[in-house]
Amino acid sequence: MTKLGGKIETLAVVGATGAVGRILLRELEERDFPYNKLKLLASARSAGSTVEVKGKPIQVELLEPNAFQGVDVAIASTPDEVARDFVPWARAAGTIVVDESGYWRMDPEVPLVIPEVNRDAIKNHKGLIASPNCSTTQMVVALKPLLDAVGLKRVVVSSYQAVSGAGLPAIDELRRATEAKLSNSEFSPAMFAHNIAFNLIPQIGSEKEAGFTSEEIKMVRETHKILGDNTIEIAATCVRVPVMIGHSEMIWVQTKKPITVAEARKLWEGSPGIVVVDDLSKKSYPMPVACADRPEVFVGRIRQDLFDPCGLVFWCVSDNLRKGAATNAVQIAEALVR
Amino acid sequence: MTKLGGKIETLAVVGATGAVGRILLRELEERDFPYNKLKLLASARSAGSTVEVKGKPIQVELLEPNAFQGVDVAIASTPDEVARDFVPWARAAGTIVVDESGYWRMDPEVPLVIPEVNRDAIKNHKGLIASPNCSTTQMVVALKPLLDAVGLKRVVVSSYQAVSGAGLPAIDELRRATEAKLSNSEFSPAMFAHNIAFNLIPQIGSEKEAGFTSEEIKMVRETHKILGDNTIEIAATCVRVPVMIGHSEMIWVQTKKPITVAEARKLWEGSPGIVVVDDLSKKSYPMPVACADRPEVFVGRIRQDLFDPCGLVFWCVSDNLRKGAATNAVQIAEALVR
Repeated sequence: MTKLGGKIETLAVVGATGAVGRILLRELEERDFPYNKLKLLASARSAGSTVEVKGKPIQVELLEPNAFQGVDVAIASTPDEVARDFVPWARAAGTIVVDESGYWRMDPEVPLVIPEVNRDAIKNHKGLIASPNCSTTQMVVALKPLLDAVGLKRVVVSSYQAVSGAGLPAIDELRRATEAKLSNSEFSPAMFAHNIAFNLIPQIGSEKEAGFTSEEIKMVRETHKILGDNTIEIAATCVRVPVMIGHSEMIWVQTKKPITVAEARKLWEGSPGIVVVDDLSKKSYPMPVACADRPEVFVGRIRQDLFDPCGLVFWCVSDNLRKGAATNAVQIAEALVR
Repeated sequence: MTKLGGKIETLAVVGATGAVGRILLRELEERDFPYNKLKLLASARSAGSTVEVKGKPIQVELLEPNAFQGVDVAIASTPDEVARDFVPWARAAGTIVVDESGYWRMDPEVPLVIPEVNRDAIKNHKGLIASPNCSTTQMVVALKPLLDAVGLKRVVVSSYQAVSGAGLPAIDELRRATEAKLSNSEFSPAMFAHNIAFNLIPQIGSEKEAGFTSEEIKMVRETHKILGDNTIEIAATCVRVPVMIGHSEMIWVQTKKPITVAEARKLWEGSPGIVVVDDLSKKSYPMPVACADRPEVFVGRIRQDLFDPCGLVFWCVSDNLRKGAATNAVQIAEALVR
C-alpha cells in the first residue's frame, strides 16, 4: 500500500450510475474522501452520459479492459458477472479494487471486510477487497459486540428487505405496482417474480442449497468468513417487503455465556457505527423510513428470551444502500488510504 | 349442549359490522351454518344500520344487557373491553358464546380452541369458548403436527402482520397513507403509532412484560394453553407490514427428535386445514396476496437447519380475518352444534 500515502491520485467509481453508485458519489463528497482525479465507469448503456460531482459534470466512461490505466483505487458496485470480468482488468493495471458485488466475496484470497468488525483483514489484500452483502453487513455489525463479549452459538434471522436492494428500477416498480393496485389497474412485474405491491415475496436471489436461497446462504457463509468462525449456527430467511429503502431484521441469538438486556444495550451503545433506538414505552424503535439515508446500523426491541438466559432477541435496521453498500465500501477505501 | 341437536334456533353475531364481523356473516352463509334465526348485534355507533344476509336486509340491534334473551349461540368479534362487559350478559341469558376477543382467552375456566388442534377442549366449556389471536392460530395449526410427531423444544417466530388485524379503518389508513406518500402529501396516522406506508412498525399491541408487546406475549401464552404444554420455549417478534390482508410468519423450530424436510412436508400435507405451497424452483411459496380470502393455513419454504438435524425453518401465511378469526370461530360453533 506504499503508493497510498494519505491521498489517492486517481479514484474510479465503477457502476457510477446505479442505485449504489449514486450514493457512493454523494458519500465520497460528504466524507471529503481524499483523491485528486475521479473517473466514472459504467457499462455501454450508461457510458457517455454525464454525472455531476462536486458541482461539476463528469462524463461517464466505458468500463473496458484498458479503463483502469493510471487508476490507483476503484470502488465498484456492479452485478456479479460484470465484477467477474472487470476485476482482472483492474488488477492487471495495478488498481486496488473495493468490490461490492457478490462474485469475489468467498474467494479465500480476498478479504471480506466491515471496517468496524475486521479492519485488520484489509492488510492481507492482493489488489481486491470485497464488501459484504447488505443483509449480512448490518447483522454482523450488530453481532460482533455480542460475539466478543459472550460468544455466539446460534443465530436465527428473518429479514424484511427493501426493494432498492434490487436496484433503482425496483424502486420504480414498487411505486408503479402500488399505484396500479390503488387504482385497480393491471400490472406485470418485471424486477420481481411476483407483484410486490402490498405483498411479501419470501425469496431473494436464486435457489441455492438445501432449499435456501442465495441471499440466505450469503448470510451464513459471509458472516462466518467475516467473523472468522464457521461454528456459529445460522438459520436465515430472507423476505422482500414493500419498503423503498432500509433492510430490517429480526435477530434471535443464543450466546455462549448469559447476557442481560442492559449488558447488551451497553455493548451496542459503546460500539462504533451502531445507534440504539429502544424505548417501547415511547413507541421508539428503528423503522426503515426513519433509518433511510443514515449511515449507521440501528438496534432496538432488545429483549431477553423468556426461557433462556443465553437467548437474546432484537430488531436491526439499516439503509441497505449506505452501510449495506456505499458507506461500507467508502470506509474500506478510507482504511486503505490511511 | 343438549339443546344444540344439530341446529341452533337463534344465532347472534356480535360486532356484525366490523372487519371480522362482515367475514363472519359471509362465512356462515358459505358454510350453510345451521340456524333458524339470526340476530345481529353491535355497539350504539352501528346499531340501527342494516346488513344484508342471504339476500335479505337485517337490522343491527344494540348490544345491551337484554340483547341475548332467546339467543342459543353467539359468535363475537369485538374489542376486549366490549367482550369483558357483554359476555356476562350472554351467559346470564344461557347463551353459549364463541368469543374472538383477547379478554377471556387466558381464563383457566375458558377453553381456548382451534378445532384442528384441540377440538376436545370444547366439551369443557361453561358457556364460553375463546378463539385465539390471529398470529397464534396459524402458527399453532402449523406446529401441531410437528409437536405430535417429534416434540417441540423451542420456537423462534417473526411475524409480518397485515394492517387488517387492526380493523377496517386500518386498511383505509394504509391506502390513504400510501396515496399520500406517492403524491408527496402530508399524512397523519390515526390507527397506527407511525406512518405505515412503505414502512414497518415493530410493535403490535401495548408494552407487556420484559420488553415484549402484548401480541408477542399472546403468541407464547396462548400457544402454551392450546397445546397444553408450558415448556415450549417461544420467542416471538411481531411486526406490522404494509400489507392489507394476510399474516406471514417465519417460524424456526427445534424439535425433540430429528425430522427431515420430506417428513415435515408429509405431516403437513396430511393435516386438515393446511396447504403446502413449496417449490422454490418454480418460485412457488405462500404470499399474503395469494392467501387472502382463503380459509386455510399455508406452509412453504420448508428447510432443515444447516447445522442442526432437529432444526426446521418454514414460512407460514394465512388470512388473519378468516382462519385467524372468522373461520376459526365458525368452526368452533360448528363443533358445538354437532
